[in-house]
Amino acid sequence: MEIVEGTITLKVPEGSKEVLLKNLYLSCDPFMRNLMNKPQGTETSSGLNYTSGSVSRNELLKFLIPDYKYGDLVWGLTKWEEYSLVPSSQIISKIQHTDGVPLSYYTGILGMPGVTAYAGLFEVGSLQKGERVFVSAASGAVGQLVGQFAKLTDCYVVGSAGSKDKVDLLKNKFGFDEGFNYKEEPDLNAALKRYFPEGIDVYFENVGGKTLDAVLLNMRVQGRIPACGMISQYNLTQPEGVTNLANIVYKKIRMQGFHFFDYVNLYPKFLEFVLSHLKEGKIVYVEDIAEGLENGPAALVGLFSGRNFGKQVLLVAPE
Amino acid sequence: MEIVEGTITLKVPEGSKEVLLKNLYLSCDPFMRNLMNKPQGTETSSGLNYTSGSVSRNELLKFLIPDYKYGDLVWGLTKWEEYSLVPSSQIISKIQHTDGVPLSYYTGILGMPGVTAYAGLFEVGSLQKGERVFVSAASGAVGQLVGQFAKLTDCYVVGSAGSKDKVDLLKNKFGFDEGFNYKEEPDLNAALKRYFPEGIDVYFENVGGKTLDAVLLNMRVQGRIPACGMISQYNLTQPEGVTNLANIVYKKIRMQGFHFFDYVNLYPKFLEFVLSHLKEGKIVYVEDIAEGLENGPAALVGLFSGRNFGKQVLLVAPE
Repeated sequence: MEIVEGTITLKVPEGSKEVLLKNLYLSCDPFMRNLMNKPQGTETSSGLNYTSGSVSRNELLKFLIPDYKYGDLVWGLTKWEEYSLVPSSQIISKIQHTDGVPLSYYTGILGMPGVTAYAGLFEVGSLQKGERVFVSAASGAVGQLVGQFAKLTDCYVVGSAGSKDKVDLLKNKFGFDEGFNYKEEPDLNAALKRYFPEGIDVYFENVGGKTLDAVLLNMRVQGRIPACGMISQYNLTQPEGVTNLANIVYKKIRMQGFHFFDYVNLYPKFLEFVLSHLKEGKIVYVEDIAEGLENGPAALVGLFSGRNFGKQVLLVAPE
Repeated sequence: MEIVEGTITLKVPEGSKEVLLKNLYLSCDPFMRNLMNKPQGTETSSGLNYTSGSVSRNELLKFLIPDYKYGDLVWGLTKWEEYSLVPSSQIISKIQHTDGVPLSYYTGILGMPGVTAYAGLFEVGSLQKGERVFVSAASGAVGQLVGQFAKLTDCYVVGSAGSKDKVDLLKNKFGFDEGFNYKEEPDLNAALKRYFPEGIDVYFENVGGKTLDAVLLNMRVQGRIPACGMISQYNLTQPEGVTNLANIVYKKIRMQGFHFFDYVNLYPKFLEFVLSHLKEGKIVYVEDIAEGLENGPAALVGLFSGRNFGKQVLLVAPE
């Protein structure tokens, strides 16, 4: 990634159906790393491959022009830049609810990570009241919501994270039943057995690799694994081998990858659900805000060593 | 496994609700190997763990007593023995259709393997007309039906098997579009790219390990992997590592383990489907019949080196 400076004219070209946006907050997400990979296999899922010369895409908040009126706030997909000219199809939603809600939340709890947690648990994961839920990367953008949504569904919830402070956050701020620091567990299988003596109904997969391998040994019959990401594998030249997959057969497990984009239709229902809980103080959201576009690359890279504490946001321009 | 001889009285005990059966054909299936493993993880899926002193369970054809009348033919779960006393809940179905249909088919195409292929493709795998289907262990009890059912659904079908003769069977007898001998492919990924330049929609998983790893690179977006077995892994002390699981996320793949027992309710619909195609000669079934209970252990062991040619059956008593 490199910072490119240039001069632009803040004007939508004659006859264009595009929308001119001023980016206020940008999101830093692990999946962006994958957009930089060379395509593998026959197809990629999103068509959003990073190509030399283009810039990483992302969610945005901004002002705009045609269908919309000047000063409207929206969120959707844009590039990492101060101003963006985008087709209106890349705007996911107008922002109506601003009282008492930080605008940055639309890159997190009220945006892609929020819908990801919601769709992953309830649609892909078919979560039922009272089930036993494990989530990895549990203090991250999606994980902290997975845990809180599952608690609101009367589930038993355990999360793993990569530091003592993050584990404290899980237990003391997000209301998880238990949490553990995976870096301090010499045997992940033993750790999971300790927290799930009766096994796991739903594992919300964010990391892959060794964690997934240990989870497979501890899943319950007809367990579900909604797979949102495998962050531990993205930077490896040779990914780790997962050896316990036969448990998918033995235990009739359903493991399913999914992308937020296929669940955008749930957004109104989701927004009602989450805004009401936010207002009642039953859900909280922790953000880690870096300031200035020039600090974006370091913030993105930091995700892969767990430097972020909560959802990583990039403040581009003051509201 | 050992052969145990003894004398029994052919009588249902006073007050018992059990049914006395004479076993005619027994089925040899890879999953039976798993029943002999020590439990792994927190739970097993079936509760059918092999314990010292008990005998392997299996499908049967037999005569019987109370609810049923003497001479009725049935199929269901029994042990490997000449006569069985079983709760009637272990009888899956009375056998009504015998004209022109070998009784042994009720351990295969008209029994567990048949329903497994049917439910796996159409229920778990959500197969659609015209999709691209790959099946491993393709000449086996389940695989040969997967390919034929998919061809009846106007799909493009490729199978892998472990010998030239088996591959010939796929193409010349079962009507697969293509087939290959996985033992002669130095690069399974390249082989799959050759047969699926546009990728695989449904992979019917019977083997696991290296084949699964190569398949993951070649799946299409929103592909499905109904997982019926992972025979290549059952006898390994340390299973092979599967490294390409991140494709489940990238491509939004759904992989799901399943057992025949959860789809027994489909049996009447399935039977109508398969009997009509059998009568019209649009489906064929290849069996490999061993004779005599004493030859059962060798027949079972043979499955793991691919010694069987088609569905392995054990003839216990002449009809």
